[in-house]
Amino acid sequence: MTNALAGMYAALLSGFADNEDLDEKRQRNIVDHVLRQGLKGLYVGGSTGESGLMSTDELFEQQAVVKDATNGHETKLIAHVGQPSLRDSIRLARNAEKLGYDALSALPPHSYRFTPDEIFHYYKALAASTGLPLIIYEIPGRVGRESSVAELSAILDLPGVAGIKFSSMNLMILSQLRSKHPDSVIYFGSDETYMTGAIAGANGGIGSTYNVLGKLYVAMDEAMSGGQIERVRDLQAISRTYVERLFEVGVMPGIKLSLRHLGVDCGPCRAPFRILSDAGRKPLIDFLEQPDVKPWVS
Amino acid sequence: MTNALAGMYAALLSGFADNEDLDEKRQRNIVDHVLRQGLKGLYVGGSTGESGLMSTDELFEQQAVVKDATNGHETKLIAHVGQPSLRDSIRLARNAEKLGYDALSALPPHSYRFTPDEIFHYYKALAASTGLPLIIYEIPGRVGRESSVAELSAILDLPGVAGIKFSSMNLMILSQLRSKHPDSVIYFGSDETYMTGAIAGANGGIGSTYNVLGKLYVAMDEAMSGGQIERVRDLQAISRTYVERLFEVGVMPGIKLSLRHLGVDCGPCRAPFRILSDAGRKPLIDFLEQPDVKPWVS
Amino acid sequence: MTNALAGMYAALLSGFADNEDLDEKRQRNIVDHVLRQGLKGLYVGGSTGESGLMSTDELFEQQAVVKDATNGHETKLIAHVGQPSLRDSIRLARNAEKLGYDALSALPPHSYRFTPDEIFHYYKALAASTGLPLIIYEIPGRVGRESSVAELSAILDLPGVAGIKFSSMNLMILSQLRSKHPDSVIYFGSDETYMTGAIAGANGGIGSTYNVLGKLYVAMDEAMSGGQIERVRDLQAISRTYVERLFEVGVMPGIKLSLRHLGVDCGPCRAPFRILSDAGRKPLIDFLEQPDVKPWVS
Amino acid sequence: MTNALAGMYAALLSGFADNEDLDEKRQRNIVDHVLRQGLKGLYVGGSTGESGLMSTDELFEQQAVVKDATNGHETKLIAHVGQPSLRDSIRLARNAEKLGYDALSALPPHSYRFTPDEIFHYYKALAASTGLPLIIYEIPGRVGRESSVAELSAILDLPGVAGIKFSSMNLMILSQLRSKHPDSVIYFGSDETYMTGAIAGANGGIGSTYNVLGKLYVAMDEAMSGGQIERVRDLQAISRTYVERLFEVGVMPGIKLSLRHLGVDCGPCRAPFRILSDAGRKPLIDFLEQPDVKPWVS
Repeated sequence: MTNALAGMYAALLSGFADNEDLDEKRQRNIVDHVLRQGLKGLYVGGSTGESGLMSTDELFEQQAVVKDATNGHETKLIAHVGQPSLRDSIRLARNAEKLGYDALSALPPHSYRFTPDEIFHYYKALAASTGLPLIIYEIPGRVGRESSVAELSAILDLPGVAGIKFSSMNLMILSQLRSKHPDSVIYFGSDETYMTGAIAGANGGIGSTYNVLGKLYVAMDEAMSGGQIERVRDLQAISRTYVERLFEVGVMPGIKLSLRHLGVDCGPCRAPFRILSDAGRKPLIDFLEQPDVKPWVS
Repeated sequence: MTNALAGMYAALLSGFADNEDLDEKRQRNIVDHVLRQGLKGLYVGGSTGESGLMSTDELFEQQAVVKDATNGHETKLIAHVGQPSLRDSIRLARNAEKLGYDALSALPPHSYRFTPDEIFHYYKALAASTGLPLIIYEIPGRVGRESSVAELSAILDLPGVAGIKFSSMNLMILSQLRSKHPDSVIYFGSDETYMTGAIAGANGGIGSTYNVLGKLYVAMDEAMSGGQIERVRDLQAISRTYVERLFEVGVMPGIKLSLRHLGVDCGPCRAPFRILSDAGRKPLIDFLEQPDVKPWVS
Repeated sequence: MTNALAGMYAALLSGFADNEDLDEKRQRNIVDHVLRQGLKGLYVGGSTGESGLMSTDELFEQQAVVKDATNGHETKLIAHVGQPSLRDSIRLARNAEKLGYDALSALPPHSYRFTPDEIFHYYKALAASTGLPLIIYEIPGRVGRESSVAELSAILDLPGVAGIKFSSMNLMILSQLRSKHPDSVIYFGSDETYMTGAIAGANGGIGSTYNVLGKLYVAMDEAMSGGQIERVRDLQAISRTYVERLFEVGVMPGIKLSLRHLGVDCGPCRAPFRILSDAGRKPLIDFLEQPDVKPWVS
Repeated sequence: MTNALAGMYAALLSGFADNEDLDEKRQRNIVDHVLRQGLKGLYVGGSTGESGLMSTDELFEQQAVVKDATNGHETKLIAHVGQPSLRDSIRLARNAEKLGYDALSALPPHSYRFTPDEIFHYYKALAASTGLPLIIYEIPGRVGRESSVAELSAILDLPGVAGIKFSSMNLMILSQLRSKHPDSVIYFGSDETYMTGAIAGANGGIGSTYNVLGKLYVAMDEAMSGGQIERVRDLQAISRTYVERLFEVGVMPGIKLSLRHLGVDCGPCRAPFRILSDAGRKPLIDFLEQPDVKPWVS
């Protein structure tokens, strides 16, 4: 089961109208662009999709639009359903199952400082709520503490849990999880250092910048499998430079600006995210036009 | 304007049905109990109210129920409207204004790591969206970083901003804010060390345990004003011991258990909060039955 | 025993020659100045004294000079002996006992991330090494983690341990320690918020800025005992403003500059501490010349 | 210059007598054992050597003993000279130069929270004090904050600075430094995840467990250069398991226990490090006797 999910996924952006409403046309524009990257699949309704600023009802709608927009393609679809309350998470999970999604994923509960026991039971109930495989999540920067290997391992052992999205810099923990759970999918969540997670045992990646540089990540994954370390480093250097540019203007606003530059009508971010100053745009656009970058975004 | 808001407020709990739906009857039970504490007012729809697990629509409904349940009382009502997106925050703020609330408050935006600039503009837009005074919020444990005095001061200087709820241990910053903003309300958010915030310049408090020990906090505030330091310490010791008991079982579940023990039918917490183990209950109940505590909760 | 130690102490500066060697004359100049502040005593060889940059041999010499310079005065002397290794700590402790110091104190071992068990045994061995009362230390900013109440309480229960220097913002823990250890001395280590530690249960203070504003801290302590909260706040505001000025130029260099401005030939700090830029000096000197400050430093 | 220093180094242990004095014979025993590992060199007087618990005079003595014990071998010698004060650091640096060491290294100043400007000037003065190349150090866990790329890059650009020992989990920063400083040596300081630092751009490693598993790290480095990713992972798994065992008993005590088991009379750690409980020893010894481990430690 898990091998079928391994690989490289775009953490899909959400398409908003100029008034910040969810916009079906723009959502389809984004999906169409990402499908052309040749990735393994899409991670729908996650943090990159600004789901932290969207209502559960909007996420229902988005799940349906994205599913419809990918009909006829071989892409895998993972629905992020990690809403603050367990009941909303389960409602979203069941909707995704009904629509034909391939897997679920969920942030750990994060609206409060929940105990490890509360996190365990959240994932246990969620995993039991559908027949879909569930991808859990480690993201200390969002939750406020690092999980131990024992805590993560206990959740990975639950029926229905197929893997983890690992967005932490602690690669000791990643490699310990790989050793204890050889059949689990481990997606590394740091685009700019993907190669370090891959050598530590990740067999897939999920990232924001894959919306723009998807082809490059596919190539990096192949080079990694082939032991072509120098090529891996060269491709990673391009990805890292892009992230450096994004840090200057804000990651989500910067990616949406990039897509607009590439001809994708994707709309704005939702407030409190701020619109880019004109000053910040130029280095980002210049990057996309560099001779060594252009082939990856064309 | 600000003096009119100073004082002691309960961070109101939410009343849920056994199936975790918002329950009007139980919400009224909680309001009735808290009104008997003699506090200055209620802080409605905040973190203590599990608003982090509720939808914007539920918060609309709760605002109306609480307003109705307090009709005929002199209590002040502050509506917490800090939803993840600015647009939902503004919708809630306007609803509160229409219903006749006295003030607004909002967590800083916290679904992502927003920049100080984004936080400033969030509060600026929110403060401008109604005619009600706005109470901002400093809570590093939730947002992931401590704001500087300059950042907080710039927001306090915005038109329509009347004060701050300060839930941080950095009392140097609290006293600097008091010095720079003598007319602002500063509510201290740490129940168990209220006296330390008060001596540093807070002229009010907002807390979870005020739902249970409201009379005691009113008495502590009076003793502080009168320079009766030993009495302040004695009352604070009771409050601190209660918080120690709550830490053993979880704060929100423990307060709801306390209320039920006191005869208030308030229902459960919403998952992922967990139900108390029986083992944890006894020390909490024993505390409420202590001879020095009982008068404060009767 | 412990009551005899309670009160306000200057964390004594070290006097260095222009070439940064320990300088007896300048050390005596500093001691003479501080003795005129009317404080309860001196805390010798601590962090403020740049002991983190001095050898054990230098600390031996300093203990002797300071003891000699205080002969004939009623001041209490606490020797800080918290060197990285236990053996050096014990050697310093025995030297202090031989010289007639009144008490010992020691940072928790901090050269490595020691376990709570290692810290406990360090203090146990040190407390047993002389007949002097020992003041332990809580300073999360230096050690990298916050101790629990249980850990600190176990050390306070050791034979020979008389109290704690508490340099943490967690006043819940301070008040819990006060409740569990009513006979221990608790010195609060944050000059700029002394009043918040005092109301939480501290019965003394040890601070860097006491070298300059010692008289003011004595007055603040008296006002606190008398329940004169407004006077406490006024005095604390002066102390806080001084600390704000010091933060702009570096605490230790700024205090030495202050003393030189007040006519005390105390020499430079030791590198890596940097010399003040001229730009930074003016606000600091201006502060010392303010009409409301000048009486306290004359 | 820098290529000559690249490679794998043991962070050398110190040999203490049973009374914890520095012991020449035991120091030589350790050196002899490590020389047989086939590593590029030794890193002398660093944190692993418990230099944080030793006096500057002892470090002088150790430099001489180690130099003498390696006469006739091709091993490179890097002297760690990062004492708390700049003057002691310089004295140690000049001694190392006189003795014929190949390079210097120094922890950033860490006894106080120094500013980036103070850290820069510390390294600048140290680099100028001898003709030896200097290896700087990034170790947020010890210093209390993470340096920015700009801060580290400015120090790497100083005359005489040849590289960095990087003991941080932030591999984005490591790869940015590699990109900006292609000629610098970057030693990765995390033994248990060496492969992740190596793929990100490290061209060497310095570690505690190299004292025991030195041959394995040499083999891992060769496999990495050859693109044999599976072999790298297999070797890293052994190293990681060893570190897991060490975490159970304390790293430094555990390594000394390991050496004693392998027949090296190396003595105890210095207090406050604690002696191992018997309970903790067995899993460590069992590891060293595993069939897949034994060849690496024989």
